[in-house]
Amino acid sequence: MIAPQLFQPASIAVVGASENPTKPGGKVLSNLLRGKFAGPIYAVNKKPVHVDGTIYCADIAEMPSADLAIISIPAKDCIEVVGRLLERGTRAFILFSAGFGEAGAEGQTAEETLVKMIDDAGASLIGPNCIGVIHAAYKGVFTEPVPDYDPDGCELISSSGATAIFIMEAGIQRGLRFSNVYSIGNAAQTGVEDLLEYMDEQFTEDQARVKLLYLEDIRNPFKFMKHAASLIRKGCKIAAIKSGYSEAGGRAASSHTGALATADNVVRALFKKSGIVYCSGREELITAGCIFQSKELPGDKLAVITHAGGSAVMLTDALTSGGLQVPRIPPEGAAALLSRLNPGSSVANPIDFLATGTASQLADIIDFCENCEGIDGMIVVFGSPGLFKSVRDVYEVIHNKMTHCKKPIYPVLPSIINARLEIEEFLARDHVNFSDEVVLGKALPFVHFRPKPTFGMTHLAPMETATIRSIISQAEEGYLDPQLTRQLLQAAGIRMVETVVCNSQAALDAAVRKMQYPIVLKAVGPVHKTEVGGVVLNLNSREQVLEEYRRLEKIPDVKAVQIQEMKFGEELYCGAIRQGQFGHLVLCGLGGIFLEVLNDVANGLAPLNEAEARSMVRSLKAYKIIRGYRNRPGVNEDLFVDAVVRVASLVHLAPEIAELDINPFKGSPGELVAVDARIRIEK
Amino acid sequence: MIAPQLFQPASIAVVGASENPTKPGGKVLSNLLRGKFAGPIYAVNKKPVHVDGTIYCADIAEMPSADLAIISIPAKDCIEVVGRLLERGTRAFILFSAGFGEAGAEGQTAEETLVKMIDDAGASLIGPNCIGVIHAAYKGVFTEPVPDYDPDGCELISSSGATAIFIMEAGIQRGLRFSNVYSIGNAAQTGVEDLLEYMDEQFTEDQARVKLLYLEDIRNPFKFMKHAASLIRKGCKIAAIKSGYSEAGGRAASSHTGALATADNVVRALFKKSGIVYCSGREELITAGCIFQSKELPGDKLAVITHAGGSAVMLTDALTSGGLQVPRIPPEGAAALLSRLNPGSSVANPIDFLATGTASQLADIIDFCENCEGIDGMIVVFGSPGLFKSVRDVYEVIHNKMTHCKKPIYPVLPSIINARLEIEEFLARDHVNFSDEVVLGKALPFVHFRPKPTFGMTHLAPMETATIRSIISQAEEGYLDPQLTRQLLQAAGIRMVETVVCNSQAALDAAVRKMQYPIVLKAVGPVHKTEVGGVVLNLNSREQVLEEYRRLEKIPDVKAVQIQEMKFGEELYCGAIRQGQFGHLVLCGLGGIFLEVLNDVANGLAPLNEAEARSMVRSLKAYKIIRGYRNRPGVNEDLFVDAVVRVASLVHLAPEIAELDINPFKGSPGELVAVDARIRIEK
Repeated sequence: MIAPQLFQPASIAVVGASENPTKPGGKVLSNLLRGKFAGPIYAVNKKPVHVDGTIYCADIAEMPSADLAIISIPAKDCIEVVGRLLERGTRAFILFSAGFGEAGAEGQTAEETLVKMIDDAGASLIGPNCIGVIHAAYKGVFTEPVPDYDPDGCELISSSGATAIFIMEAGIQRGLRFSNVYSIGNAAQTGVEDLLEYMDEQFTEDQARVKLLYLEDIRNPFKFMKHAASLIRKGCKIAAIKSGYSEAGGRAASSHTGALATADNVVRALFKKSGIVYCSGREELITAGCIFQSKELPGDKLAVITHAGGSAVMLTDALTSGGLQVPRIPPEGAAALLSRLNPGSSVANPIDFLATGTASQLADIIDFCENCEGIDGMIVVFGSPGLFKSVRDVYEVIHNKMTHCKKPIYPVLPSIINARLEIEEFLARDHVNFSDEVVLGKALPFVHFRPKPTFGMTHLAPMETATIRSIISQAEEGYLDPQLTRQLLQAAGIRMVETVVCNSQAALDAAVRKMQYPIVLKAVGPVHKTEVGGVVLNLNSREQVLEEYRRLEKIPDVKAVQIQEMKFGEELYCGAIRQGQFGHLVLCGLGGIFLEVLNDVANGLAPLNEAEARSMVRSLKAYKIIRGYRNRPGVNEDLFVDAVVRVASLVHLAPEIAELDINPFKGSPGELVAVDARIRIEK
Repeated sequence: MIAPQLFQPASIAVVGASENPTKPGGKVLSNLLRGKFAGPIYAVNKKPVHVDGTIYCADIAEMPSADLAIISIPAKDCIEVVGRLLERGTRAFILFSAGFGEAGAEGQTAEETLVKMIDDAGASLIGPNCIGVIHAAYKGVFTEPVPDYDPDGCELISSSGATAIFIMEAGIQRGLRFSNVYSIGNAAQTGVEDLLEYMDEQFTEDQARVKLLYLEDIRNPFKFMKHAASLIRKGCKIAAIKSGYSEAGGRAASSHTGALATADNVVRALFKKSGIVYCSGREELITAGCIFQSKELPGDKLAVITHAGGSAVMLTDALTSGGLQVPRIPPEGAAALLSRLNPGSSVANPIDFLATGTASQLADIIDFCENCEGIDGMIVVFGSPGLFKSVRDVYEVIHNKMTHCKKPIYPVLPSIINARLEIEEFLARDHVNFSDEVVLGKALPFVHFRPKPTFGMTHLAPMETATIRSIISQAEEGYLDPQLTRQLLQAAGIRMVETVVCNSQAALDAAVRKMQYPIVLKAVGPVHKTEVGGVVLNLNSREQVLEEYRRLEKIPDVKAVQIQEMKFGEELYCGAIRQGQFGHLVLCGLGGIFLEVLNDVANGLAPLNEAEARSMVRSLKAYKIIRGYRNRPGVNEDLFVDAVVRVASLVHLAPEIAELDINPFKGSPGELVAVDARIRIEK
């Protein structure tokens, strides 16, 4: 719960205020004033602070109560100050001060004490170790830039204050607009999850739709997914960076805000399930933000319109490599258009109206594409050779058409020197500029084909829940015994090959009678079964089985012999591994070399619905083999998808499963049977 | 051969000159004057053109002879004008005019006529359809920007004039400096190959080392590789874009400068053999150029130094994903350094000296890294929170250290708004700025691990050259007959399994006696052998062979029966395909699903030396299988590498081979034998 005073304060106290605008306590005052905060601003400091528009208080005791306190004092004084403010009724805090959790054990203890005090009072805390908050009501940061508030602009949440600044700087230069900016610092109390929850619960139709996130830590992935997916279903668009996935990057993150490295694939799975566009750096994030601020591209067919052939060629290469189309426009359809362009122009798509092309020709081309059935959106590349002729008339056309056309128009204005002024004017009319055509050409497919949120759309597979919970509750830590493994999988609806462990020839003889040939024998006991000759395949008669049994018995360390029917088909693999708060990552693919040599594995966060599991299976490089290839008949895809869903449901229902491996699954067009499985319990 | 007048003209005529600087004929005059061309400039036009510093001539006949003519008149008048200029001794031409080869058949004819006239006179032509040339001696372009000439700056060659402009604009903003810029337009006479040849032949130690290329067409790949590789061996660094690889992109390229789409993988192979860094767009090209303008990184270990943790984390993730290292600095080594930093700083690497870090602390950190044995280079990320405190002192330290340190220092100055002025000052001191840390982090490994040129380092495998040429000369077009295929491969030193085609039981019987069991029989005749039961494997006795022969004989369309020894091992593949002027692309990999399902194929341009072939084999995703995997003993890598070299040598020696496919090769630790092969001849 976020206290209402945090974002709608009637009054703000700056504790540690200063007259010196090069100090945080001075700069935040000037930002609050420049941002025209509507209520009283109290400047609190022992030393007098006289700044027009603020009310000086030598001590908290002298101050009327303030809804929100922005605190810029040394860490060691914070607990006392926050205590006194709480007593006087303050219920929202923004803590700039560093020297808490990021600075070692002592700081961590102080941070926990602060959070407990604030929690107990039902109050809210942003920070510590942050640059503050820019919100509709106030500009509570001690840094620049402070972007003009645009209700349709991006909301930005950042784990790092400096990164928030750098994102704003690079974004503003591209024309990206901002609404609210949250620097969460150590996120001691309020994390990205809480802000998303707040946005989700307070969502109204007229609210900002684009969210950009820079994250070093996701402490409650479940809450994160829930609200991110919900916001996206309400029409929001989210792009995010989660840094610190490399060993060395993680080292940096833990020295920074105390974040722990999380494996990149888990984060990618989390974003996929949430419907978030994964970005690896500021440029990708800003480009995604700029695309989000444009009209939605309704299909995958683009017209590339240019007076500069080279850019169009590179752009088209990038778009089509990413899966978008730049379809040829049939000559008959475009003949009338071509007649209005200069000789030598091409309307095949890319539409090249040459260096001599005019603004009115561009208007004709855009109108043609707006009305052309086979085109879903347009990219216009238009620069300037610096011949003193302004491109203002052309940018005026782009502006008008962007305003009036139903289809999105993405402007690529590359002449950042020759057309600097015209580009600035264009941006000032609330447009973005993609100055590099290939950066746009790589990002657009990625954003267009972004995942749809699937979080919460899971129906658990029907399973024998009571049996599962009973086995799990009684199980000890460590690897589950083969018989229980088998029972557990069967309770989850996963067929496992019939296996009997025999200690005598008589037991073996009884087991053989119930089985179909060919039969497999495996020695129980030796660690490396294969190397000691402890595995015998393809036995076709009772005599062969008994003869091999007698041989196996004599191998050192053999305690018993396992007998099972031999299964044929492709080797498949399905597994799950617990990833802390993220729950289980479920993996699937073909077994053997596909798994071990080629790393051809798909993954998703449990639980998974049928569509998610199917898209995992279909994303495999070796998917063609599942469909059947040459003389290999393939695998029943529905059965495999069902098994993946069941594994995901099982680990979801039994979170005590730390690791689960079904390897191999034997799959054919008719059946899918687990041949071997290992389950490790960790309670 | 490039006429010396092109780059060292004593006098320049501008034909189609104008007083109006918004026209090409006016703008080029002002650029030549601004560029302080040392000789006379003749402004030629029927209409009077009076521009200070130029000499007006109403007609070519009135003009003293000019070494170089820059022509800005309608295409239809060019042939006459060039003819008259040639008569008067002009030996170098830059043609701005459009309306030639790019505009259709008539223009193409005019272009060819022009080239013939100019060739016959031993003169040189740049263009037509270009923006001109910026060179040490003169600024012969009609566009902006005209970068200040820096002898150490990049040389830029561009197929597209507008793209050259956009590259300069974006490059200048990053601090990239330029020496010569060549817009080659239609490259009717002088192409990129000719300019590289000129640079190579004229190379001196004090010449610009960095070349950036934007190409839509490589007409003479052999010449291109020869001179690019030679320049790189002399110490140059080249990065290039070759656009137009997608079907739609190629459509754009052919409407632009008449280029034909070339498959992207052939271009990548060409660049690899040349030692060129492959780039897909302007941003990658400019970033590579900026890295090239920095000191060379001597190893792969970097220190990341910052006051902004977030950037350091993202940067470290990107660097290590690309294969560079950000090694942990042992605490004992860095203890003294840490004691000089603010509390809470980290020297583990990334080295984070916090938002409060000072210029002198940065100097200490850089000195430490300069003297630290385990560090090869540094990246310094330093922005500004906009607190009115200038970062000038910090950038002064970076400047000084970049000047004096032996190790490269890459500056990431992200505050393009807050520190705009300081960044401009920094760039003015001949530095570049990587404003986005992840863009640098992705590019640096790519540039650092760039290929070394291998062109020309090929020794053809020893082969029976006379036999090969004799078979090829006598061969008809189409698929080579199996017996000749076998002879050809054997002449190239590639072992093929013994195969005898038998038309009678007696012939079969004779053949069997010379072979080792198991034996394979294949029906000759039916198109789909396998489907009609025309292939029999694993025959272990004379009786079995004869019995199967009698069965095969009766299958419809069977004309004969092929008998061969059965070979065991991994299925490998090696092939070659002719790619026009590029020569042959040689491909290798594992066969079966690796080839057909997973597309796991490596390639290189013929001929190949042993090291090139080995790096191809080792780049395969399935390389582990060649090394031996579990119960699969693997393949003799040396034999496979040798076979790839031999295939490359064979197609190099016999360019009439349009396609060659050895599929499968059977490889084991002891031998490598071609089991089936197809060769198509196209003369």
